[in-house]
Amino acid sequence: MYMPKIVDHEYQREKVAEAAWRVIRKYGIEQASVRKVAEEAGVSAGSMRHYFTTQSELYAYSMRLVSERVKERAHQIRPKGNLKEDILEYLRQVLPLNEETRLEMEVWFAFVAKSMSDSSLKTLRNQVDDDLRQLFRKLVEALIDTGLVSADLDHDLEAERFYALIDGLAIHAVLRPEVLTSEKVESVMKHHLNALCRS
Amino acid sequence: MYMPKIVDHEYQREKVAEAAWRVIRKYGIEQASVRKVAEEAGVSAGSMRHYFTTQSELYAYSMRLVSERVKERAHQIRPKGNLKEDILEYLRQVLPLNEETRLEMEVWFAFVAKSMSDSSLKTLRNQVDDDLRQLFRKLVEALIDTGLVSADLDHDLEAERFYALIDGLAIHAVLRPEVLTSEKVESVMKHHLNALCRS
Repeated sequence: MYMPKIVDHEYQREKVAEAAWRVIRKYGIEQASVRKVAEEAGVSAGSMRHYFTTQSELYAYSMRLVSERVKERAHQIRPKGNLKEDILEYLRQVLPLNEETRLEMEVWFAFVAKSMSDSSLKTLRNQVDDDLRQLFRKLVEALIDTGLVSADLDHDLEAERFYALIDGLAIHAVLRPEVLTSEKVESVMKHHLNALCRS
Repeated sequence: MYMPKIVDHEYQREKVAEAAWRVIRKYGIEQASVRKVAEEAGVSAGSMRHYFTTQSELYAYSMRLVSERVKERAHQIRPKGNLKEDILEYLRQVLPLNEETRLEMEVWFAFVAKSMSDSSLKTLRNQVDDDLRQLFRKLVEALIDTGLVSADLDHDLEAERFYALIDGLAIHAVLRPEVLTSEKVESVMKHHLNALCRS
């Protein structure tokens, strides 16, 4: 099948970035050299510069790809008309509940940690943080609009609480999947949503 | 005042580890070389080996010192008889609400991220995770025992929720102190405790 060069190039960049994820998971970001990533991606070290000219470009792209993937999955959700169920389905795309999302979250977490001492990654990290904070505000507002949650609640406070809870669960699930199992994550998020709706 | 050598040695190790915290905050763990830490601590590179023979010993000690400091502060709290207030005071020792605890949390977060690809740090990380999970169970049980929280609640689920929320807040506060201010963290944790007691 004929593929225009530009598409093929972008596709290859994604494949290389995914290889970078796997290398980061295995060795940590600092040890994720361009050479190791090339090897993992199955491309020659020499051809790497066709995709990424610098290591920091590779980092930034690989980090951004995590958030793009989550967004893509979230956009594919078709609301079923039951807001609570729709919210749960949405959160399932963000949380590390299977092998694919666990790898994404592990890599994201590594990048966020690196962003604390690497200002080139801070902008993207803060953008994603802003987007997520905004998302949780919208979720709380939607719950209020449909009458599931009392309008007396402090929107801002509930959104911060919801967001912190989900991020905390995500980190705990990535670090100790054998302790905080997917079933437990599911139970805690359902419980929180129900408690919110009862209050 | 006469100080026995052993105390002095331990004191110096703590000073060097605190210097490591500051270097880690500034440059990230991977860039926190023994040379940089020695410089920050104001000791000669040669005398570093009196305190730590390897870099990984320095890392492990510096990571452990964070959890020791938090424990020390927590032990110093004298319960005032109002369980909700006592719990809040306890959580204030864990959360990054001032410059001292912010540095600790930033460093802890960096170590946790490193522990994902460095098994030598995993044991301590999991120990602290177990301790914290246990702590939140005890907090929930204490709330139930004093009748503040209904005994019908699922202890385990509430403990996981509480723990994830506090860890999520800690990370958000460390990453964006200008967005999730100390006042907001305080409001969210108070709100959660009140919601828990009303349910």
